[in-house]
Amino acid sequence: MSRGAIITLLTDFGLVGPYVGAMKGAILSVNPQALVVDITHEVHPQQVEEGAFILAQAWPYFPQGTVHVAVVDPGVGTGRRALALATPHAVFVGPDNGLLSSALPEEWRPAAPGPVPLPPGVKAVALENPHYHRHPVSPTFHGRDIFGPAAAHISRGVPLEELGPPVHEVMALPPFRAHRQPDGTLEGRILHIDRFGNLVTTVRQEDLPWPKVKVQLGPHQVLGLVRTYAQAQGPCALIGSSGFLEIAVPGGSAAQVLGAHLGQTVRVEPA
Amino acid sequence: MSRGAIITLLTDFGLVGPYVGAMKGAILSVNPQALVVDITHEVHPQQVEEGAFILAQAWPYFPQGTVHVAVVDPGVGTGRRALALATPHAVFVGPDNGLLSSALPEEWRPAAPGPVPLPPGVKAVALENPHYHRHPVSPTFHGRDIFGPAAAHISRGVPLEELGPPVHEVMALPPFRAHRQPDGTLEGRILHIDRFGNLVTTVRQEDLPWPKVKVQLGPHQVLGLVRTYAQAQGPCALIGSSGFLEIAVPGGSAAQVLGAHLGQTVRVEPA
Amino acid sequence: MSRGAIITLLTDFGLVGPYVGAMKGAILSVNPQALVVDITHEVHPQQVEEGAFILAQAWPYFPQGTVHVAVVDPGVGTGRRALALATPHAVFVGPDNGLLSSALPEEWRPAAPGPVPLPPGVKAVALENPHYHRHPVSPTFHGRDIFGPAAAHISRGVPLEELGPPVHEVMALPPFRAHRQPDGTLEGRILHIDRFGNLVTTVRQEDLPWPKVKVQLGPHQVLGLVRTYAQAQGPCALIGSSGFLEIAVPGGSAAQVLGAHLGQTVRVEPA
Repeated sequence: MSRGAIITLLTDFGLVGPYVGAMKGAILSVNPQALVVDITHEVHPQQVEEGAFILAQAWPYFPQGTVHVAVVDPGVGTGRRALALATPHAVFVGPDNGLLSSALPEEWRPAAPGPVPLPPGVKAVALENPHYHRHPVSPTFHGRDIFGPAAAHISRGVPLEELGPPVHEVMALPPFRAHRQPDGTLEGRILHIDRFGNLVTTVRQEDLPWPKVKVQLGPHQVLGLVRTYAQAQGPCALIGSSGFLEIAVPGGSAAQVLGAHLGQTVRVEPA
Repeated sequence: MSRGAIITLLTDFGLVGPYVGAMKGAILSVNPQALVVDITHEVHPQQVEEGAFILAQAWPYFPQGTVHVAVVDPGVGTGRRALALATPHAVFVGPDNGLLSSALPEEWRPAAPGPVPLPPGVKAVALENPHYHRHPVSPTFHGRDIFGPAAAHISRGVPLEELGPPVHEVMALPPFRAHRQPDGTLEGRILHIDRFGNLVTTVRQEDLPWPKVKVQLGPHQVLGLVRTYAQAQGPCALIGSSGFLEIAVPGGSAAQVLGAHLGQTVRVEPA
Repeated sequence: MSRGAIITLLTDFGLVGPYVGAMKGAILSVNPQALVVDITHEVHPQQVEEGAFILAQAWPYFPQGTVHVAVVDPGVGTGRRALALATPHAVFVGPDNGLLSSALPEEWRPAAPGPVPLPPGVKAVALENPHYHRHPVSPTFHGRDIFGPAAAHISRGVPLEELGPPVHEVMALPPFRAHRQPDGTLEGRILHIDRFGNLVTTVRQEDLPWPKVKVQLGPHQVLGLVRTYAQAQGPCALIGSSGFLEIAVPGGSAAQVLGAHLGQTVRVEPA
């Protein structure tokens, strides 16, 4: 896996300062042949669930054996563990705060945030072997000093077991999924607001038995489903490219037009 | 062209969500050896002409044989075709909406947006062969499922003809050029606003017979030409690095100081 | 150093326009095997010292022999020289305006901005040999036409001496350091505001003899030191990952909460 190994980065560091550059330098110092690919550095600061969602929308498209480093880490420098987690598809490196849980099978994830045992075929270690850290280790920048170097060593073929002791439980977030209410409607929430101002919700295509829906978002009602952005003129609902219900305003920003925010509740019923 | 082939990306996806990462993953899954280079992902949403302009300012500097993927695609999922277009210099992949027309020789482009036949030495295909798509194909994300994979296959040496049927006409935008008015002045418009707030116009150096000019922009008059930003103190006009007239405010933003916007008319006369 | 040579980029070009893409194309046209890595393109426009600071926080983490191109260049097109500067660790390419001075040993840098002779083991040339320029050379875009190509030629093994005449003095900025006042307090200033709104100051860990400090910032007093962001609830002071005193507001923006700006004075005393 050495020459041309792919290492992706997903962080909330932003692109303004030296952080992303320093992390890339630390990776390339360990494996100068690594191909470092940015997923995003614009996760909203410390929004672990948004980071997990974006990771979930990106990792499946990368080749088998890719090493994904994800750092959205409000607990950096506290007792939270640093993980490397290997699945049959890829290796995930980051803090043990639920960010990596999109690497786990959907059905394995808990109903509320908390620890889960590892599913069959998945192994994990705590990145505690100082031999694979960059020194000195900053208490506030594990991306550069622990996660990046760990990913680079893994990409060179260092066995996971070398990096630290095995871990049998990891923190996980619930699946990104809406809940069916007693009256048959679906209640979800806004998981991500993209650059266009489209609102990506937890409501999934396969949970929508209705071809025509009404989405309640605060005081607004939005109708759908349309098939493409180009078909609608005002606010509309459609299934986005990731299979989740999105609310969009063609040529405008649904977030602005509808005054929406991350985490806001949406309620879907047949129209 | 296989090992180390260069694939550039130009989109309006922004850097906030999973879209760019997913497209890169889809490319690297087809050709893990590709060198993926970002031109920009910050084209103003759905501004096809601005995208075409930025592409025009970037592609000539890349090596022969580079594959350029450009996706600014308000019509995604409608009947607009998906294209790969090969010129003697490079291959261009994207929607058939005029975005790729900066690949065509200046003199070949129409006076108003519309279809043009292909110039000699250029060939194009519609990306209709499902064998080269990523499945399932999302109706809203052809960058990941059609354009990215097509570029990756081309970079591995798949002949254009394999990707779909030949196309004999493509949509094209007019050249980026000002118009001489009956009174001898030049009328152009603002094509791009850069990060510094500099206003890049359609007025070209070779259309300016006058060493000293007066530029009318709404209620404002700006004098020029200065040779470098450092020579001026207030708003000034100069020939930018791309050979187009730019309006700048050294140390400030011309867009803000002059209240300017994309598409706004500028009129140039001798001073 | 040819195959897979690493070239980093640090500019104030932003990611909105064609500039970064064109510079990358110009580099890859000279050395298609170069691995081009972005440090940042979001230095505040024309803020040379901020650029020097970010460069200082990133270059030490890259492998030996990396070529770093830095372009924050308010004097582009004027008489300022274009430099390549080789140290035992790396090669630095950019304008001779102090931006590259973080490549020089701390103790070599002057008390006020100005020219310094080269330290032992460092050599520099002025990039005047037109054979290694891209032509025509734009008076406003030396990143594409001079700096990028020079870096690419160096990464292919062209000796520095080929690129132009030797230079014996370069412009340098003072070290990033606070000053001890007659009353024993430390006076520093804000060097960088990161994406989280954290304020990075010139006050260094090794200049702080006190475990508990009071930081005066305009009308605000901030207490520290905490060890990690997670330990504090309101504004707090801590030693950041680069070894400089930072002021942070966990879960918020210190820049906003405290109304702070780049260059603002901070005063530190024991608490």
